[in-house]
Amino acid sequence: MRGTVLYGPGDIRFEEREAPKIMEATDAVIRIAATCVCGSDLWSYRGLQPINGPTPMGHEYCGLVEEVGSGVKTVKPWQFVIGSFATSDNTCPHCRYGYQSSCEHREWISTAQASQLRVPLADGTLVATPGVPSDDLVPSLLTTSDVLGTGWFAANAANVKPGSTVAVVGDGAVGLLGVLSARQMGAERIIAMSRHESRQKLAREFGATDIVSERGEKGVAHIKGLTRGVGADSVLECVGTQESMMQAIQSTRPGGFVSYVGVPHGVELNGEQLFFSHVHLHGGPAPVRRYLPGLIKLVLDGNINPGKVFDLTLPLDQVAEGYRAMDERRAIKALLYPNGRK
Amino acid sequence: MRGTVLYGPGDIRFEEREAPKIMEATDAVIRIAATCVCGSDLWSYRGLQPINGPTPMGHEYCGLVEEVGSGVKTVKPWQFVIGSFATSDNTCPHCRYGYQSSCEHREWISTAQASQLRVPLADGTLVATPGVPSDDLVPSLLTTSDVLGTGWFAANAANVKPGSTVAVVGDGAVGLLGVLSARQMGAERIIAMSRHESRQKLAREFGATDIVSERGEKGVAHIKGLTRGVGADSVLECVGTQESMMQAIQSTRPGGFVSYVGVPHGVELNGEQLFFSHVHLHGGPAPVRRYLPGLIKLVLDGNINPGKVFDLTLPLDQVAEGYRAMDERRAIKALLYPNGRK
Repeated sequence: MRGTVLYGPGDIRFEEREAPKIMEATDAVIRIAATCVCGSDLWSYRGLQPINGPTPMGHEYCGLVEEVGSGVKTVKPWQFVIGSFATSDNTCPHCRYGYQSSCEHREWISTAQASQLRVPLADGTLVATPGVPSDDLVPSLLTTSDVLGTGWFAANAANVKPGSTVAVVGDGAVGLLGVLSARQMGAERIIAMSRHESRQKLAREFGATDIVSERGEKGVAHIKGLTRGVGADSVLECVGTQESMMQAIQSTRPGGFVSYVGVPHGVELNGEQLFFSHVHLHGGPAPVRRYLPGLIKLVLDGNINPGKVFDLTLPLDQVAEGYRAMDERRAIKALLYPNGRK
Repeated sequence: MRGTVLYGPGDIRFEEREAPKIMEATDAVIRIAATCVCGSDLWSYRGLQPINGPTPMGHEYCGLVEEVGSGVKTVKPWQFVIGSFATSDNTCPHCRYGYQSSCEHREWISTAQASQLRVPLADGTLVATPGVPSDDLVPSLLTTSDVLGTGWFAANAANVKPGSTVAVVGDGAVGLLGVLSARQMGAERIIAMSRHESRQKLAREFGATDIVSERGEKGVAHIKGLTRGVGADSVLECVGTQESMMQAIQSTRPGGFVSYVGVPHGVELNGEQLFFSHVHLHGGPAPVRRYLPGLIKLVLDGNINPGKVFDLTLPLDQVAEGYRAMDERRAIKALLYPNGRK
């Protein structure tokens, strides 16, 4: 089997690796139909997050089940499945509260940019589609595995309701799908913060009503201006830096809601400042498993087309170009098909 | 008129000051029936929060209206009124969302440990009782002005619901009334974190079902032990230090709720740690005005007796002893009556 390995900053290789096999009775091995590069992969690709030696990459995936362990009950070979980047037994207390990405038995999927993948806790992690979907639906189904699930959590955690005024900080794929999610949840006004024309265009397609291109204090002032000085009800922080977090908090009205869904890098929140901002704050790794059945249905019913975030499609063996294109912001998100698929 | 002034760490004086008068058309001047020392007053009393020269003190109050400005419409002379420590017009967008302590025209009451007090924005800040209450109800009514309102907000912001498992960090008056509030909201289990016997006893009277006397990691481990390793649904942080904040966050289950209601002193939250804790976080200056009518009714109907937090009663001219007793933790909270009242 061949898979993607990061050797150091900017050094992505697609190389021969040992094929995954069933190791625990609760495992499944799947043949990847499609995978992709995540904005979070760029932290280590850029050397901003250290790695210890060669590191396999990838955590977004869908595909056909090849084999299951003896303890797997609901997932069967030849089903088309989608799973979360965090495995879950879906039965522990945290799972039952809907926080499957904090499952007591959580593991992180980290080798999905490959032709095959071992998925632990298959019953609690994977969701099968009814039948094998047509090729044109695969990109959108793939997004439910992380990027859409995370954008959806961002909107949900920021308490987006029918009629809400929402701002989205970050015009990466998660931010753009945060816009789509807020629209699905009935937001009346959706302000996308973006400086890039192609991303602004997609934000509008997904439901943004306003674009704010300024950042920092000017961005905050623009959002205050658009909301009669009040601030937004809900702000989705989809970047993970100190600047983006402060921009989100300051753009929110007192009593409003800030969500943050990307791992914060170097973020420190001053308690007193947060206190007087009067905002609600919620985030963390998105509990994608909670949303998977509903999001898969929205895609299969043709209600949403989140696969539009993929503006670059490559065969998996050209994965390094996918990283480069995203690093250089030439692409929003790179879709990768193992050889043998278009 | 005489009032309380802090001259420096440990130096509280009760001295002649200029009597308050109507300065704006929306002001009221009230004659204080009772006031008290707040835990937050101790930050500056202890020199942990700098002051710029002699500083009048006090922000918890109830009393009789003496005079109102020409623009005051609902509050009338000789009514008995209670108000929040934060003034509010109760009409701006933030007020209408229930965040009156972030009112666009907010001022902080800061001279209430005196015989008279000017209250700006009287119509939006003060709530009158039906008739003048009997003396025995005055202590409990006084608590609605801040300490009960803040404990109630702590429980509310931590999403306490019927059946919840709640932990309260801090056994000061706010924490104890957080226990009372959680009980009123139907919490099934209320774990009070307290090392002091008299406070443990009052916590139990107010509805605590369990006491945890350890702090820090041991305290967290004890709470995890009491909740089958899961953590509490709701944790009320009622202290405002780095240690208490981390204790609160770590005692909460993923997806659970942490509230914080005392001004944080020296608190810095690491973004990544907060992210993986998966908690909801909400706090700020309690929007007491939102809760005043309901809390006053609970007191007048005899449903709650929050005035029990006052374990020291002094004439106002002995206010310095009230500060000393609270500083030395000889008293939970000192009630102060201007001379002429018992």
